[in-house]
Parts: sequence; structure tokens; C-alpha cells
Amino acid sequence: MKRNSFLLMMVVMATTAMLAISPAMAQTDPLPSWNDSAPKKAIVAFVEKVTREGSPDFVPVPERIATFDNDGTLWAEQPMYFQFLFALDRVKALAPTHPEWKDKEPFASLLKGDLKAALAGGEKAMLEIVMATHAGMTTDEFERIVKDWLATAKHPKTKRLYTEMVYQPMLELLVYLRANGFKTFIVSGGGIEFMRPWTEKVYGIPPEQVVGSSIKTKFELRDGKPALVRLPELNFIDDKAGKPVGINEHVGRRPIAAFGNSDGDQQMLEWTQAGPGARLMLLVHHDDAVREFAYGSESKIGTFSDALRTEATKNGWTVISMKNDWKRIFP
Amino acid sequence: MKRNSFLLMMVVMATTAMLAISPAMAQTDPLPSWNDSAPKKAIVAFVEKVTREGSPDFVPVPERIATFDNDGTLWAEQPMYFQFLFALDRVKALAPTHPEWKDKEPFASLLKGDLKAALAGGEKAMLEIVMATHAGMTTDEFERIVKDWLATAKHPKTKRLYTEMVYQPMLELLVYLRANGFKTFIVSGGGIEFMRPWTEKVYGIPPEQVVGSSIKTKFELRDGKPALVRLPELNFIDDKAGKPVGINEHVGRRPIAAFGNSDGDQQMLEWTQAGPGARLMLLVHHDDAVREFAYGSESKIGTFSDALRTEATKNGWTVISMKNDWKRIFP
Repeated sequence: MKRNSFLLMMVVMATTAMLAISPAMAQTDPLPSWNDSAPKKAIVAFVEKVTREGSPDFVPVPERIATFDNDGTLWAEQPMYFQFLFALDRVKALAPTHPEWKDKEPFASLLKGDLKAALAGGEKAMLEIVMATHAGMTTDEFERIVKDWLATAKHPKTKRLYTEMVYQPMLELLVYLRANGFKTFIVSGGGIEFMRPWTEKVYGIPPEQVVGSSIKTKFELRDGKPALVRLPELNFIDDKAGKPVGINEHVGRRPIAAFGNSDGDQQMLEWTQAGPGARLMLLVHHDDAVREFAYGSESKIGTFSDALRTEATKNGWTVISMKNDWKRIFP
Repeated sequence: MKRNSFLLMMVVMATTAMLAISPAMAQTDPLPSWNDSAPKKAIVAFVEKVTREGSPDFVPVPERIATFDNDGTLWAEQPMYFQFLFALDRVKALAPTHPEWKDKEPFASLLKGDLKAALAGGEKAMLEIVMATHAGMTTDEFERIVKDWLATAKHPKTKRLYTEMVYQPMLELLVYLRANGFKTFIVSGGGIEFMRPWTEKVYGIPPEQVVGSSIKTKFELRDGKPALVRLPELNFIDDKAGKPVGINEHVGRRPIAAFGNSDGDQQMLEWTQAGPGARLMLLVHHDDAVREFAYGSESKIGTFSDALRTEATKNGWTVISMKNDWKRIFP
């Protein structure tokens, strides 16, 4: 082969390779665990229009705020919020140093394994369990306790680590949004300090982008060393009408996209939608009893009421059917 | 000139130019408004060691958190916190719709121009003025009011816009830290919603990185539209022992560098220092009566007490003399 022919051939090969690669790269699916149904189309259309320079719907990068509920939206929440399962395990772990619990409800029933009797006391009983297990230590100590529990505790049904019970399609969505200049926040009814020790590793969401419920803390010197001590006193409930309040307090601007799964998320979606310009509101519906759990209006955990469905329809919110819209549930 | 000689000359010129430029670029001073005294040296030495890969003091980017007080640290605070001057202007602006203020303290004295009499009621009087001017409207409305005021109101002594009374050396420091992978936060006793409308433009600090004092807000429908209404009820005081609490709540990790100027910042610096690894704690001292203001232990605004100075010496905190360490004060 002559030298010039060789060079020509190289150019042709390179060009062909580029032609072969370019469309493939352009078509790389950022959401491979989503079926090509309405929710995925709504997400991609929204992201494309708010990121396209010159588009009437263009949103500058600093204003691309997306908020996600956690329980039931990013990770599972059945048979009970995982944080409450953590609290139950803590009651058992702490029982030897609390002999008085043997005769004191709700702890006595809990320690006998009778969850139903323990929770007969309703919200008051739940609050007692939470305070007994979440307060009294420093913030550093609590972080260590949460990390240790998550490293070993297994889900009662799937026998997987709780941090493995996150939704693969939502992990992809988080990455896709961030790749398009979005800042992703968690806005959860769950405890802010229960989530922060692991959200960065699991979701890529740093502690400063986690909003949640909290108890009060107090700065004091412990053995001459500054510490923040967790007090048995509620500070903020980040649920329902509390979610827009929490968003305003922590983020200080209105999201342009919000993702939830239950009645607790309605006001967050309303608040998001009420701003000017393009908006995306989305609800996950748990209708896959085979691969995950199926529950809705009748469930006490993650209630998706008929009123919420009516609201979603009226406002044009997208409802995701886990069964029909997700190819895969867990990683 | 022969073609080859010309090419050679071009290469030589280009190389010479690169040699001339490279050291100059490496030596470009990121803090030109700082004298080459101890504070600047401490800052640069700290940043270099926490960013040098392989250094025993290396800190990964996500953990490079720096917190800044605002009043007296990033912008001026004399003759009175600017937010309080805003409140006084608001009392005057709102007076026509509050005829009852003519006979009601502290408003009556204020409207007569007698600030001293108005403030005779102490903290209670100040709180009444703040609540009357900061609550009752939606968060969107309040943001607009703050922006309008800052666009036109002038400082009583310098006749400059308040947003021009920021410290040039600190603006350079914020940029320098961010260029080195730091996330910069404001942690101020001032109102969180008074700062957020302008901190991004003036300091490059977005609303979600502003921590401050706050009143409660409530989510409600106003004319069928979701709104957050500001209530005349304290939510959180982000001062003194409140600063580590506010940092923990909003940032969720401990800063490695903290900057303040008064007794209100002591606990933030203690909390910062109590973490492991390299730490930088720094206090601005206002000792320049000619170019700014000179005040310290005797001042009610921005008190820098003898106890704070003792603490700074004991803990090895760096104290900046505005007079000696800053070449320039305002931009």
C-alpha cells in the first residue's frame, strides 16, 4: 500500500468510527432502568427544555433545585419506616442499661416482641420510643450509632442491607439531574441526623443538602471539649405543610422539580408548582407486590390517598407506576 | 529571513513568553488587599496544607467547609446592624398604615426621631420593632422589600449603598477559598431572609449556604395560591452557642475554617477547632477609626471583649488588625 493510500484509509476509518460512535453516545440512555413510558418522557422533556439555552423555559444553573422525599421515594418504607426499625433495635440494645423498661410501656411490650401492644399508645408511644433512642448522646455519637446499625442490620423480608433497598431508577434520576446542573436535595419527614451519615455515599447527596425532621441540640462543654448534645425535645417536623417551610429554611429558594410518593409530599409539590416557569412534579406509586410492595390509600405508612390522586390529576402531576414504569426496582 | 529561521524565532519567542508568564501566573497574589503580615500568611499556609494531596493535613473537597459571620466580618456593622437600620426605615414607611403607632412605644419615639427613647425599652422594644417590620407578609413579598431597600438606602456616614460596605479583603478570601475547593457559608446572628436576597450577588454565596436567625413561617393558601407567611414569632437565634447548633442543622458537618469578629462568634470558632486535623480560626478586629470604625470591648454592637481576646490567645486564633493587616477596606 502506498503511503498516501494508507493515510487516506486511516482518515476514512477514523471518520467512520466517529460516525459510528457519535450517535451511540448521543443516544446513551441516562435512565436505563426506566421503561419508555410517560414518566420517563416527562422527565427528559422537562430537563431538556430547562437546560436548553435560548429556550423560553431555560433556567440558570443556580436555580435548578430538585427536592426528593426519602421514605418510599428514594428507598423502601415497608413494613415500617426504616428509622423506626432502627429505634426498635436500639431499644433492645439499650435495655440492659434501662432495667425500668421491663415494667414501663411502650418498652415492656416491645421487649417482649409485642409490637402491636407497644404501639397501642399511638403517637405518644412512638415519640417516647424515638426520644429514648435518639436523644441524650452527642451528635458525633449518634452518627456513629447510625453508621454501625446500617452496616449490619438487615431488612426483615428481603434480608438485604437497608442501604441496598434504594430504588435504582431514582439513583439514575439523581445522577441525570446533577449531570444537567441540578442541585439535588432530600426533603424528608425522617430524621435529618438519621439520614446525613449515609446519603452522600448512597445517593451522592451531601449532608448540607438534606432537610428533615429534628430534635433540639445544645452546645456545651463535655470534659472541657465542645459538643452538641441531642435533647429529648422536638425541633421541627418536616412533613406535609412543614415541607415547604423546611425547604424555605434550608434551601432558601423554590424547587423547580419535586418528587414524592405520599400525602406527606402534597404541599411540597404544590409549593414547587406555584413558582413561575417550567415545573416538574412527580409521585411514585407503590403497586408492585411482586418486586416490592403494593400499598396506597389504606396504608398507614406512605399513604397515597384518593384525595392525593385527585390532586395529582387536577394539577397535571406525573404518577409513576413502579410495576409498569420501572424495569428494575433495586440495584 | 528564511522560513526556517522565522519558525525558529517564533518558537524561541513563544518559549520566552511562556517562561516570562508562568512564574508570574504562579505568583499572582490571590489576596492583593492583604498586607504580607501574619493573618495572610496563616491563611495561605492553611489552604496550601489542606489542599496538598499526600499531605498529612489533606482534607477531601466535600469536607472543606468554611463559615463566615456577616455583620462586622464580611460587611460593616456601625453605627448599628444594617438590618436594624432597615427596620427603622420600614417603621417610617409603614407609619401611614399604622396610625396607632403615634401613641405607642417604641414606635412613637422612633417616628419623632428619638432613637434613644425608642430603645429605652431594651430587647423587648427591639423585638417589637423587628416583628412589626419583618412579619405579616409572604416570604416572596419580604424578599422584594429587602431588595428594594438595598437598591436605594445609603449608609448615614459614608453615603454608600450598604452592599458597597463589604470588606474587599474578605471578598478576595471567599474567592480564594472557593478556588481551592472550599464551600463557603454565612453563619450570622442576622436574619436569614434578610441576607439571602443579596448574598449570592455580593459574596457569591447562594441562599442555601446562608445560616441565620429566623422567625417562624406558615404554609397556607392565599387566594388559592400556596404561600409562606412570615409569623411574628421567633424561630431560632443564630448567635453565640446558637451558631454551632445552626451549623449542625444547616450544614451537617463541622467547618475546618471559621471567621468572626465578636463575642457572638466564640462558640463557632471553638466548635470548629474541636474537630480533628488542621483548623483555621480567625477574628477581625475593628481598630481603624480613619478608614472604618474603631471599637472593641466597650461596644454594644460587635463586642470584642477582653475575655474573647484571652480566649483567642489561649487557643492560637489569628486576630486581624484592620489597620495593620488590610491594605484596603472597601471595594
